Amino acid sequence: MKIILIGASGTLGKAIDAELAPRHEIVRVGRSNGDHQVDITDTASIRRLFEQVGRFDALVSAVGKVHFGALAEMGGEQFAVGLRDKLMGQVNLLLIGREFANDGASFTFTSGIISDEPIRFGSSASLVNAAIDGFVRGAAIELPRGLRVNAVSPTVVEESMEVYASYFRGFKPIPAAEAALAYARSVEGAQTGQVYKPR
Amino acid sequence: MKIILIGASGTLGKAIDAELAPRHEIVRVGRSNGDHQVDITDTASIRRLFEQVGRFDALVSAVGKVHFGALAEMGGEQFAVGLRDKLMGQVNLLLIGREFANDGASFTFTSGIISDEPIRFGSSASLVNAAIDGFVRGAAIELPRGLRVNAVSPTVVEESMEVYASYFRGFKPIPAAEAALAYARSVEGAQTGQVYKPR
Repeated sequence: MKIILIGASGTLGKAIDAELAPRHEIVRVGRSNGDHQVDITDTASIRRLFEQVGRFDALVSAVGKVHFGALAEMGGEQFAVGLRDKLMGQVNLLLIGREFANDGASFTFTSGIISDEPIRFGSSASLVNAAIDGFVRGAAIELPRGLRVNAVSPTVVEESMEVYASYFRGFKPIPAAEAALAYARSVEGAQTGQVYKPR
Repeated sequence: MKIILIGASGTLGKAIDAELAPRHEIVRVGRSNGDHQVDITDTASIRRLFEQVGRFDALVSAVGKVHFGALAEMGGEQFAVGLRDKLMGQVNLLLIGREFANDGASFTFTSGIISDEPIRFGSSASLVNAAIDGFVRGAAIELPRGLRVNAVSPTVVEESMEVYASYFRGFKPIPAAEAALAYARSVEGAQTGQVYKPR
């Protein structure tokens, strides 16, 4: 399969790459590195990416920014960051990418555990991650041509604990390689509208 | 309790009013009718509402527009409708309203069954409803002064079936009065971060 991997150089991205590369052609995409670049907050940039890459069999997105901060200090602007980036960035990868997707192609997006298990400073992430999971359930039943869409909602990964441990006290981290299995399940399996929860 | 009811003249709003009015003071708010008016897509309008109404003990929102339509014909603009209206409209009721809320006051928002049980034409509603549920879980743990926030995620109500029946084939509708009980549970109970699912 020809698989477009957005966020290939990130912690999750590298693990997904390692999991899928032995069996597939990976087109590595980053914000400023990789085979191609994309800014997912910019629909023109997304369209340009697909025009450059051409038809594909799977798209995996392991990117998306949200604002982390105390709810007391957050207003609409802080929530807008996650809506524009992690949420609509990924939604637009489908809304635009579907034109370039081969029959039966899959889209796999990244949400995250905070939708279900909130943490301090995470109100925007709870909103955005849940929205992605909801979108996947809703969009799956209307996609034509055997197109599929799933989300992976991982817990925190061991490789990120150096940075995130203080936010995730009491959470059991998993290796990124274990989270990556869920992406393989989405890409190489046949389900749609699923939220895989490696935890 | 002094309860601000946004969407008081709607199908759900009238049922919530009937449930709560015997025991509480209801401030009825609509887009163009009621004791006060608000446009929830406009933060200045929301602020004006709270300045007019003053301190309160509970806010109940039974409003919010999303675009219903075929996914094939939807782009970012169609998704933006629900983000601006039902999602951030309700989120902003909390972000602004918290300044005017008495200690221990509650916010109760409306999401809906489509987050979990998708229907054709409902991809934006699935996204938005799930986002509201996620926001409620995330925000609840950071609210100060005993403030609470819950969502009610009803199935379709009998009174709406005349309009919505063709979208909800096979769903068992419930009377709006039964859905209204969940709002009373949120307002008069003590839980926070909950998603009540009258179905």
